[in-house]
Amino acid sequence: MNISVIGSGTWGMALARLLFDNGHSIKVWSAIESEIKELRESRTHKNLPGVVFDEAIRFESDLEVAMEGSKICVLSVPSIFTRSTAKRMAPFYKDGQIIVNVAKGVEENTLKILTEQILDEIKNANVAVLSGPSHAEEVVRLLPTTCVAGANDLKTAELIQSVFMSPVFRVYTSTDMLGIELGGSLKNVIALAAGISDGLGYGDNAKAALITRGIVEISRLGTAMGANLETFYGLSGIGDLIVTCASKHSRNRKAGMLMGQGKTMDEAMKEVSMVVEGVYSAKAAKSLAEKYNICMPIVDEVNAVLFENKDPKQAVDALMLRDRISESIGM
Amino acid sequence: MNISVIGSGTWGMALARLLFDNGHSIKVWSAIESEIKELRESRTHKNLPGVVFDEAIRFESDLEVAMEGSKICVLSVPSIFTRSTAKRMAPFYKDGQIIVNVAKGVEENTLKILTEQILDEIKNANVAVLSGPSHAEEVVRLLPTTCVAGANDLKTAELIQSVFMSPVFRVYTSTDMLGIELGGSLKNVIALAAGISDGLGYGDNAKAALITRGIVEISRLGTAMGANLETFYGLSGIGDLIVTCASKHSRNRKAGMLMGQGKTMDEAMKEVSMVVEGVYSAKAAKSLAEKYNICMPIVDEVNAVLFENKDPKQAVDALMLRDRISESIGM
Repeated sequence: MNISVIGSGTWGMALARLLFDNGHSIKVWSAIESEIKELRESRTHKNLPGVVFDEAIRFESDLEVAMEGSKICVLSVPSIFTRSTAKRMAPFYKDGQIIVNVAKGVEENTLKILTEQILDEIKNANVAVLSGPSHAEEVVRLLPTTCVAGANDLKTAELIQSVFMSPVFRVYTSTDMLGIELGGSLKNVIALAAGISDGLGYGDNAKAALITRGIVEISRLGTAMGANLETFYGLSGIGDLIVTCASKHSRNRKAGMLMGQGKTMDEAMKEVSMVVEGVYSAKAAKSLAEKYNICMPIVDEVNAVLFENKDPKQAVDALMLRDRISESIGM
Repeated sequence: MNISVIGSGTWGMALARLLFDNGHSIKVWSAIESEIKELRESRTHKNLPGVVFDEAIRFESDLEVAMEGSKICVLSVPSIFTRSTAKRMAPFYKDGQIIVNVAKGVEENTLKILTEQILDEIKNANVAVLSGPSHAEEVVRLLPTTCVAGANDLKTAELIQSVFMSPVFRVYTSTDMLGIELGGSLKNVIALAAGISDGLGYGDNAKAALITRGIVEISRLGTAMGANLETFYGLSGIGDLIVTCASKHSRNRKAGMLMGQGKTMDEAMKEVSMVVEGVYSAKAAKSLAEKYNICMPIVDEVNAVLFENKDPKQAVDALMLRDRISESIGM
């Protein structure tokens, strides 16, 4: 099958390699001309050292050429560029093409998930998602990984499944795109909280508590928005949350850790020096919680640390000392 | 309140300290006379270096004396000694006393959980459980921790909650004792699988997949046995599983890792040189899966590695290459 990968970051490149190994014909596009030149010449990616990409993988800087003739376009740009990239793709989109979004995020001002943003820009596009606990660095090295392919109809989800599935990449199907996207983006807020806990010198007990109670909050919001509960307890929900909170590479966890150690949000952002997705998601989560009238104590405390200079230790204490409750009710 | 801690391992001692700090009067019992002598004299525990236990905590080697006048007996002996210890406690048990089991395990030949074994030995005892992601080493150092107090009636659960709750130890209530106990014991089988994956050199993606799909299997069995689904997605279920699979100290994870590196089960057990609970739980889980006719692919593969010398890599491959399915169905 002809497949385009739109965005040449580490996740896009890892998926390009996986799909190429699965026997597909691959074109990779980037908005940055110099990146395409570098990839063409070196067949390597600076953030995936030691991996050489096959000569048969094509790198394109012309979006029309990149998309032409492809049954599937994997959209792997950072979430803040999803809408603008979809807008650029719109004139070249052909009926029958499937756009598989693999980024994670909620738009701060509209509170829309990424597939909604894509549909705003490309009317009637056939959109799908792929998500799960999947560090690009491991996928590109062929370490065993699982993901969920989500689409509105099971047939599309099964097509995505068959295209990505390999002996080291197991794909499940789902028709709950909303749940998959919400889990993927809101997990970054919990990763910030886990990082703060680590930065305070707290241990694995505290982190496991934040993960477990964090997904309770996210699922409570998500089900109120119409998503399925089980999605949040699946690979794209708690699975992805576990991998993010355990990771030494997660920017969200790292930013949280710096704040736990006493840095302000601005200092932490500067030190991490890349986009810290969870900072935007934290605001969006708080807005969504207010909109749907859901109690989200971890989200509230993360927002207070981020935007009201609340002392991180006091934030954790506030979570520990809330009213005594049953596990099936709020935190 | 007067409280007895039956069993002076690291978890019993951590809880003794927590309860003492909460203002209770504490007696600790051990079956091993020399341990009591050592604790009395040194006020320290060899596996909890740096922690000094208050002079007011009493250490008793006479079980009758230890239990006398206590409203709550915390039973913290290793699960293989739960039944025999309960039998020794039976003559001294008084109506109104609550036995709070804090160990984890399923009896191999009877397939009974620990509170069932206690009730076999002490008819009509008021039993409860306390479980959650709680390394003793962290609790004894007052690092933030969460647990669930479970009892058949909410009133007892709330009493346990009020006794254990502190600014660094948050307790939720539940009336699903079966779910709490099953999650706590079966998690060790998944921890073995996570260890095997680590031993094979696989990464965080694979481990997150095993945790996520592992709790799906456990919850499927547990709900068939009458437990509540949400318990498995709570602190005593996935919370405890996360902390165990992340831990460098878990004997189950370590034994699995050695097998993933090519050792046999016997070699791994010898090297860990302590009871590897998951080996017994793996057998029990397989028997329960057969009894209740539940599909548990991870449990099956762990049993094959443990008892049929199946190559660990082939076991993981078998999990990755099963039929393509929807996430809401089996693995």
